[in-house]
Amino acid sequence: MSRQSNRTTDSKKMNSELFTLTYGALVTQLCKDYENDEEVNKQLDKMGYNIGVRLIEDFLSRSSIGRCQDFRETADVIAKVAFKMYLGTTPSVSNWSPAGDEFSLILENNPLVDFVELPDNHSTLVYSNLLCGVLRGALEMVQMAVDVRFAQDTLRGDNVTEIRMKFIKRIEENLPAGDE
Amino acid sequence: MSRQSNRTTDSKKMNSELFTLTYGALVTQLCKDYENDEEVNKQLDKMGYNIGVRLIEDFLSRSSIGRCQDFRETADVIAKVAFKMYLGTTPSVSNWSPAGDEFSLILENNPLVDFVELPDNHSTLVYSNLLCGVLRGALEMVQMAVDVRFAQDTLRGDNVTEIRMKFIKRIEENLPAGDE
Repeated sequence: MSRQSNRTTDSKKMNSELFTLTYGALVTQLCKDYENDEEVNKQLDKMGYNIGVRLIEDFLSRSSIGRCQDFRETADVIAKVAFKMYLGTTPSVSNWSPAGDEFSLILENNPLVDFVELPDNHSTLVYSNLLCGVLRGALEMVQMAVDVRFAQDTLRGDNVTEIRMKFIKRIEENLPAGDE
Repeated sequence: MSRQSNRTTDSKKMNSELFTLTYGALVTQLCKDYENDEEVNKQLDKMGYNIGVRLIEDFLSRSSIGRCQDFRETADVIAKVAFKMYLGTTPSVSNWSPAGDEFSLILENNPLVDFVELPDNHSTLVYSNLLCGVLRGALEMVQMAVDVRFAQDTLRGDNVTEIRMKFIKRIEENLPAGDE
Protein backbone atom coordinates (compact mmCIF):
# COMPACT_ATOMS: atom_id res chain seq x y z
CA MET A 1 0.00 0.00 0.00
CA SER A 2 1.25 3.50 -0.63
CA ARG A 3 0.76 6.00 2.14
CA GLN A 4 0.06 9.67 2.33
CA SER A 5 2.87 11.57 3.96
CA ASN A 6 0.62 14.12 5.64
CA ARG A 7 -1.74 13.14 8.39
CA THR A 8 -5.18 14.62 8.09
CA THR A 9 -6.87 13.15 11.15
CA ASP A 10 -6.35 13.33 14.86
CA SER A 11 -4.96 10.42 16.74
CA LYS A 12 -7.30 7.94 18.37
CA LYS A 13 -6.62 6.43 21.76
CA MET A 14 -7.55 2.79 21.77
CA ASN A 15 -7.21 -0.26 23.98
CA SER A 16 -4.45 -2.59 22.91
CA GLU A 17 -6.38 -5.88 22.53
CA LEU A 18 -7.51 -5.54 18.92
CA PHE A 19 -3.96 -4.56 17.96
CA THR A 20 -2.57 -7.51 19.92
CA LEU A 21 -4.87 -10.00 18.19
CA THR A 22 -4.27 -8.45 14.77
CA TYR A 23 -0.53 -8.68 15.31
CA GLY A 24 -1.05 -12.34 16.21
CA ALA A 25 -2.84 -12.85 12.89
CA LEU A 26 0.10 -11.28 11.08
CA VAL A 27 2.66 -13.52 12.80
CA THR A 28 0.49 -16.59 12.17
CA GLN A 29 0.24 -15.67 8.48
CA LEU A 30 4.02 -15.27 8.21
CA CYS A 31 4.51 -18.65 9.90
CA LYS A 32 2.36 -20.15 7.14
CA ASP A 33 4.24 -18.25 4.43
CA TYR A 34 7.84 -18.91 5.42
CA GLU A 35 9.68 -22.14 5.97
CA ASN A 36 11.33 -21.50 9.27
CA ASP A 37 11.34 -19.22 12.29
CA GLU A 38 14.50 -17.48 11.16
CA GLU A 39 12.80 -16.30 7.97
CA VAL A 40 9.75 -15.16 9.90
CA ASN A 41 11.97 -13.23 12.32
CA LYS A 42 13.65 -11.58 9.35
CA GLN A 43 10.33 -10.62 7.75
CA LEU A 44 8.99 -9.19 10.99
CA ASP A 45 12.12 -7.09 11.36
CA LYS A 46 11.82 -5.88 7.76
CA MET A 47 8.13 -5.02 8.12
CA GLY A 48 8.92 -3.22 11.34
CA TYR A 49 11.67 -1.26 9.63
CA ASN A 50 9.26 -0.05 6.96
CA ILE A 51 6.78 0.91 9.66
CA GLY A 52 9.45 2.72 11.68
CA VAL A 53 10.60 4.91 8.79
CA ARG A 54 6.98 6.10 8.48
CA LEU A 55 6.08 6.25 12.15
CA ILE A 56 8.98 8.58 13.02
CA GLU A 57 7.35 11.49 11.19
CA ASP A 58 4.15 11.03 13.16
CA PHE A 59 6.18 10.73 16.34
CA LEU A 60 8.21 13.89 15.79
CA SER A 61 5.17 15.99 14.94
CA ARG A 62 3.10 14.59 17.80
CA SER A 63 5.77 14.77 20.49
CA SER A 64 7.44 18.04 19.44
CA ILE A 65 10.74 16.49 20.44
CA GLY A 66 13.87 17.86 18.82
CA ARG A 67 17.25 16.29 18.26
CA CYS A 68 18.52 14.27 21.21
CA GLN A 69 21.85 15.39 22.69
CA ASP A 70 23.15 11.90 23.30
CA PHE A 71 22.22 8.20 23.34
CA ARG A 72 21.03 8.48 26.96
CA GLU A 73 18.47 11.07 26.01
CA THR A 74 17.45 8.93 23.04
CA ALA A 75 16.89 5.99 25.39
CA ASP A 76 14.66 8.06 27.67
CA VAL A 77 12.60 9.42 24.80
CA ILE A 78 12.05 5.94 23.37
CA ALA A 79 11.00 4.49 26.71
CA LYS A 80 8.98 7.33 28.21
CA VAL A 81 7.47 8.97 25.14
CA ALA A 82 7.45 6.57 22.17
CA PHE A 83 6.55 3.31 23.92
CA LYS A 84 3.98 5.13 26.02
CA MET A 85 2.46 6.71 22.92
CA TYR A 86 2.26 3.72 20.61
CA LEU A 87 2.11 0.74 22.97
CA GLY A 88 0.65 2.30 26.10
CA THR A 89 3.45 0.96 28.27
CA THR A 90 6.67 2.45 29.65
CA PRO A 91 9.70 0.16 29.77
CA SER A 92 12.56 0.95 32.12
CA VAL A 93 16.00 1.79 30.73
CA SER A 94 18.84 -0.20 32.26
CA ASN A 95 22.00 -2.28 31.79
CA TRP A 96 24.04 0.53 30.27
CA SER A 97 27.38 -0.52 28.86
CA PRO A 98 30.38 1.29 30.41
CA ALA A 99 30.96 3.13 27.12
CA GLY A 100 27.34 4.35 27.09
CA ASP A 101 26.69 2.89 23.66
CA GLU A 102 24.37 0.04 24.73
CA PHE A 103 21.30 -0.19 26.93
CA SER A 104 18.27 -2.36 27.50
CA LEU A 105 14.57 -1.59 27.46
CA ILE A 106 12.95 -3.78 30.11
CA LEU A 107 9.24 -4.43 29.60
CA GLU A 108 7.32 -5.85 32.52
CA ASN A 109 4.34 -6.26 30.24
CA ASN A 110 4.66 -6.59 26.49
CA PRO A 111 1.22 -5.81 25.04
CA LEU A 112 2.02 -7.76 21.87
CA VAL A 113 2.09 -11.07 23.74
CA ASP A 114 -1.15 -10.86 25.72
CA PHE A 115 -3.15 -14.02 24.90
CA VAL A 116 -0.11 -15.66 23.27
CA GLU A 117 1.64 -18.94 23.90
CA LEU A 118 4.37 -20.15 21.54
CA PRO A 119 3.73 -23.62 20.12
CA ASP A 120 6.57 -26.11 20.68
CA ASN A 121 7.46 -26.18 16.99
CA HIS A 122 8.25 -22.45 17.00
CA SER A 123 10.86 -22.38 19.73
CA THR A 124 13.15 -20.03 17.79
CA LEU A 125 10.43 -17.57 16.77
CA VAL A 126 11.10 -14.03 18.01
CA TYR A 127 7.41 -13.26 18.19
CA SER A 128 7.65 -9.50 18.81
CA ASN A 129 10.54 -8.92 16.41
CA LEU A 130 8.53 -6.28 14.55
CA LEU A 131 9.40 -3.91 17.40
CA CYS A 132 13.13 -4.24 16.72
CA GLY A 133 12.54 -3.27 13.11
CA VAL A 134 10.36 -0.32 14.09
CA LEU A 135 13.05 1.04 16.42
CA ARG A 136 15.81 0.46 13.85
CA GLY A 137 13.83 2.13 11.03
CA ALA A 138 12.69 5.10 13.10
CA LEU A 139 16.17 5.81 14.47
CA GLU A 140 17.71 5.52 11.02
CA MET A 141 15.48 8.37 9.90
CA VAL A 142 17.00 10.56 12.60
CA GLN A 143 20.51 9.58 11.47
CA MET A 144 21.23 6.90 14.02
CA ALA A 145 22.30 3.41 12.98
CA VAL A 146 21.35 1.11 15.85
CA ASP A 147 21.41 -2.63 16.35
CA VAL A 148 18.24 -3.88 18.05
CA ARG A 149 17.47 -7.39 19.29
CA PHE A 150 15.54 -9.29 21.92
CA ALA A 151 17.79 -10.44 24.79
CA GLN A 152 14.99 -11.84 26.98
CA ASP A 153 11.38 -12.71 26.27
CA THR A 154 8.57 -13.68 28.65
CA LEU A 155 7.24 -15.91 25.86
CA ARG A 156 10.34 -18.09 26.33
CA GLY A 157 9.95 -18.21 30.08
CA ASP A 158 12.08 -15.21 31.01
CA ASN A 159 10.73 -13.02 33.81
CA VAL A 160 10.81 -9.87 31.72
CA THR A 161 11.12 -8.88 28.09
CA GLU A 162 14.44 -7.18 27.32
CA ILE A 163 15.20 -5.33 24.11
CA ARG A 164 18.92 -4.66 23.73
CA MET A 165 19.93 -1.58 21.74
CA LYS A 166 23.47 -0.86 20.56
CA PHE A 167 24.53 2.39 18.95
CA ILE A 168 26.55 1.73 15.80
CA LYS A 169 27.16 5.09 14.18
CA ARG A 170 25.73 8.43 13.25
CA ILE A 171 24.56 8.41 9.65
CA GLU A 172 25.53 11.27 7.33
CA GLU A 173 22.51 13.45 6.60
CA ASN A 174 20.82 13.65 3.19
CA LEU A 175 21.32 10.02 2.30
CA PRO A 176 18.32 8.60 0.52
CA ALA A 177 16.33 6.17 2.66
CA GLY A 178 13.22 4.19 2.10
CA ASP A 179 11.74 0.72 1.91
CA GLU A 180 14.12 -2.15 2.40
CA MET B 1 -0.59 -19.08 17.85
CA SER B 2 -2.60 -20.44 20.72
CA ARG B 3 -3.91 -17.96 23.21
CA GLN B 4 -4.54 -17.98 26.91
CA SER B 5 -8.19 -17.65 27.73
CA ASN B 6 -7.68 -15.57 30.86
CA ARG B 7 -6.24 -12.09 30.71
CA THR B 8 -3.60 -11.44 33.29
CA THR B 9 -2.63 -7.87 32.48
CA ASP B 10 -4.38 -4.55 32.47
CA SER B 11 -5.31 -2.90 29.25
CA LYS B 12 -2.99 -0.35 27.68
CA LYS B 13 -4.26 2.80 26.02
CA MET B 14 -2.26 3.51 22.91
CA ASN B 15 -2.33 5.80 19.91
CA SER B 16 -3.63 4.15 16.79
CA GLU B 17 -0.75 4.78 14.37
CA LEU B 18 1.37 1.71 15.09
CA PHE B 19 -1.76 -0.43 14.81
CA THR B 20 -2.70 1.27 11.55
CA LEU B 21 0.71 0.66 10.01
CA THR B 22 0.86 -2.92 11.29
CA TYR B 23 -2.55 -3.60 9.79
CA GLY B 24 -1.22 -2.18 6.52
CA ALA B 25 1.66 -4.66 6.67
CA LEU B 26 -0.84 -7.48 7.16
CA VAL B 27 -2.95 -6.46 4.17
CA THR B 28 0.16 -6.01 2.03
CA GLN B 29 1.35 -9.49 2.99
CA LEU B 30 -2.02 -11.02 2.09
CA CYS B 31 -1.96 -9.21 -1.26
CA LYS B 32 1.37 -10.94 -1.93
CA ASP B 33 0.03 -14.32 -0.77
CA TYR B 34 -3.28 -14.48 -2.62
CA GLU B 35 -4.06 -14.22 -6.27
CA ASN B 36 -6.84 -11.68 -6.25
CA ASP B 37 -8.61 -9.11 -4.13
CA GLU B 38 -11.58 -11.39 -3.57
CA GLU B 39 -9.36 -13.98 -1.87
CA VAL B 40 -7.70 -11.29 0.24
CA ASN B 41 -11.10 -9.95 1.29
CA LYS B 42 -12.12 -13.47 2.29
CA GLN B 43 -8.94 -14.01 4.32
CA LEU B 44 -9.32 -10.67 6.10
CA ASP B 45 -12.89 -11.58 7.01
CA LYS B 46 -11.80 -14.99 8.26
CA MET B 47 -8.93 -13.56 10.33
CA GLY B 48 -11.31 -10.98 11.73
CA TYR B 49 -13.78 -13.71 12.65
CA ASN B 50 -11.12 -15.56 14.62
CA ILE B 51 -10.17 -12.32 16.35
CA GLY B 52 -13.80 -11.49 17.13
CA VAL B 53 -14.53 -14.82 18.81
CA ARG B 54 -11.61 -14.06 21.17
CA LEU B 55 -12.12 -10.34 21.58
CA ILE B 56 -15.72 -10.72 22.80
CA GLU B 57 -14.59 -12.23 26.08
CA ASP B 58 -12.29 -9.28 26.74
CA PHE B 59 -15.08 -6.92 25.75
CA LEU B 60 -17.69 -8.45 28.03
CA SER B 61 -15.39 -8.50 31.04
CA ARG B 62 -14.09 -4.99 30.40
CA SER B 63 -17.43 -3.33 29.63
CA SER B 64 -19.59 -5.23 32.16
CA ILE B 65 -22.35 -5.17 29.57
CA GLY B 66 -24.99 -7.87 29.80
CA ARG B 67 -27.29 -9.32 27.19
CA CYS B 68 -28.79 -6.73 24.83
CA GLN B 69 -32.58 -6.53 24.75
CA ASP B 70 -32.81 -6.00 21.01
CA PHE B 71 -30.82 -5.25 17.85
CA ARG B 72 -31.09 -1.50 18.49
CA GLU B 73 -29.34 -1.85 21.81
CA THR B 74 -26.73 -4.08 20.16
CA ALA B 75 -26.10 -1.38 17.57
CA ASP B 76 -25.57 1.26 20.25
CA VAL B 77 -23.21 -0.92 22.27
CA ILE B 78 -21.13 -1.70 19.19
CA ALA B 79 -20.86 1.94 18.15
CA LYS B 80 -20.50 3.70 21.50
CA VAL B 81 -18.64 1.12 23.57
CA ALA B 82 -16.85 -1.40 21.35
CA PHE B 83 -15.60 0.90 18.57
CA LYS B 84 -14.63 3.51 21.15
CA MET B 85 -12.76 0.91 23.17
CA TYR B 86 -10.82 -0.87 20.44
CA LEU B 87 -10.52 1.73 17.68
CA GLY B 88 -10.82 4.98 19.61
CA THR B 89 -13.60 6.25 17.38
CA THR B 90 -17.39 6.33 17.68
CA PRO B 91 -19.37 5.71 14.50
CA SER B 92 -22.95 6.90 14.25
CA VAL B 93 -25.78 4.39 13.88
CA SER B 94 -28.18 5.13 11.03
CA ASN B 95 -30.13 3.90 8.01
CA TRP B 96 -32.32 1.50 9.97
CA SER B 97 -34.45 -0.80 7.85
CA PRO B 98 -38.22 -0.50 8.52
CA ALA B 99 -38.19 -3.98 10.07
CA GLY B 100 -35.39 -2.97 12.45
CA ASP B 101 -33.17 -5.82 11.33
CA GLU B 102 -30.57 -3.75 9.44
CA PHE B 103 -28.53 -0.67 10.25
CA SER B 104 -25.36 1.09 9.24
CA LEU B 105 -22.32 2.16 11.22
CA ILE B 106 -21.09 5.40 9.70
CA LEU B 107 -17.43 6.20 10.34
CA GLU B 108 -16.28 9.74 9.63
CA ASN B 109 -12.74 8.59 10.28
CA ASN B 110 -11.63 5.01 9.90
CA PRO B 111 -8.35 4.69 11.81
CA LEU B 112 -7.35 1.66 9.72
CA VAL B 113 -6.98 3.75 6.58
CA ASP B 114 -4.86 6.64 7.86
CA PHE B 115 -1.80 6.88 5.57
CA VAL B 116 -3.39 4.51 3.01
CA GLU B 117 -4.12 4.91 -0.68
CA LEU B 118 -5.33 1.93 -2.70
CA PRO B 119 -3.15 1.19 -5.74
CA ASP B 120 -5.05 1.07 -9.05
CA ASN B 121 -4.56 -2.69 -9.38
CA HIS B 122 -6.45 -3.33 -6.14
CA SER B 123 -9.71 -1.62 -6.99
CA THR B 124 -11.83 -4.44 -5.55
CA LEU B 125 -9.86 -4.79 -2.31
CA VAL B 126 -12.01 -4.25 0.78
CA TYR B 127 -9.07 -2.96 2.76
CA SER B 128 -10.71 -2.87 6.20
CA ASN B 129 -12.64 -6.12 5.78
CA LEU B 130 -11.07 -7.51 8.96
CA LEU B 131 -13.58 -5.37 10.88
CA CYS B 132 -16.54 -7.18 9.30
CA GLY B 133 -15.10 -10.48 10.44
CA VAL B 134 -14.45 -9.19 13.96
CA LEU B 135 -18.07 -8.03 14.29
CA ARG B 136 -19.43 -11.26 12.84
CA GLY B 137 -17.26 -13.44 15.09
CA ALA B 138 -17.90 -11.46 18.26
CA LEU B 139 -21.67 -11.38 17.73
CA GLU B 140 -21.78 -15.09 16.96
CA MET B 141 -20.33 -15.73 20.42
CA VAL B 142 -23.30 -13.93 21.93
CA GLN B 143 -25.70 -16.02 19.84
CA MET B 144 -26.35 -13.56 17.05
CA ALA B 145 -25.81 -14.49 13.41
CA VAL B 146 -25.22 -11.24 11.55
CA ASP B 147 -24.24 -10.38 8.00
CA VAL B 148 -21.61 -7.61 7.89
CA ARG B 149 -20.23 -5.82 4.85
CA PHE B 150 -18.82 -2.50 3.69
CA ALA B 151 -21.40 -0.41 1.83
CA GLN B 152 -19.23 2.69 1.43
CA ASP B 153 -15.52 3.29 1.86
CA THR B 154 -13.55 6.53 1.87
CA LEU B 155 -10.69 4.60 0.26
CA ARG B 156 -12.89 4.28 -2.83
CA GLY B 157 -13.78 7.93 -2.87
CA ASP B 158 -16.95 7.78 -0.76
CA ASN B 159 -17.43 10.62 1.73
CA VAL B 160 -17.79 8.28 4.68
CA THR B 161 -17.15 4.67 5.53
CA GLU B 162 -20.35 2.69 6.01
CA ILE B 163 -20.53 -0.79 7.52
CA ARG B 164 -23.90 -2.42 6.89
CA MET B 165 -25.11 -4.96 9.45
CA LYS B 166 -28.05 -7.29 8.94
CA PHE B 167 -29.50 -9.49 11.65
CA ILE B 168 -30.01 -13.05 10.36
CA LYS B 169 -31.06 -15.14 13.33
CA ARG B 170 -30.56 -15.89 16.97
CA ILE B 171 -28.30 -18.91 17.38
CA GLU B 172 -29.28 -21.70 19.75
CA GLU B 173 -27.09 -21.63 22.83
CA ASN B 174 -24.50 -24.30 23.60
CA LEU B 175 -23.49 -24.89 20.02
CA PRO B 176 -19.77 -25.45 19.71
CA ALA B 177 -17.96 -22.53 18.10
CA GLY B 178 -14.37 -21.84 17.31
CA ASP B 179 -11.86 -21.17 14.57
CA GLU B 180 -13.17 -21.16 11.04
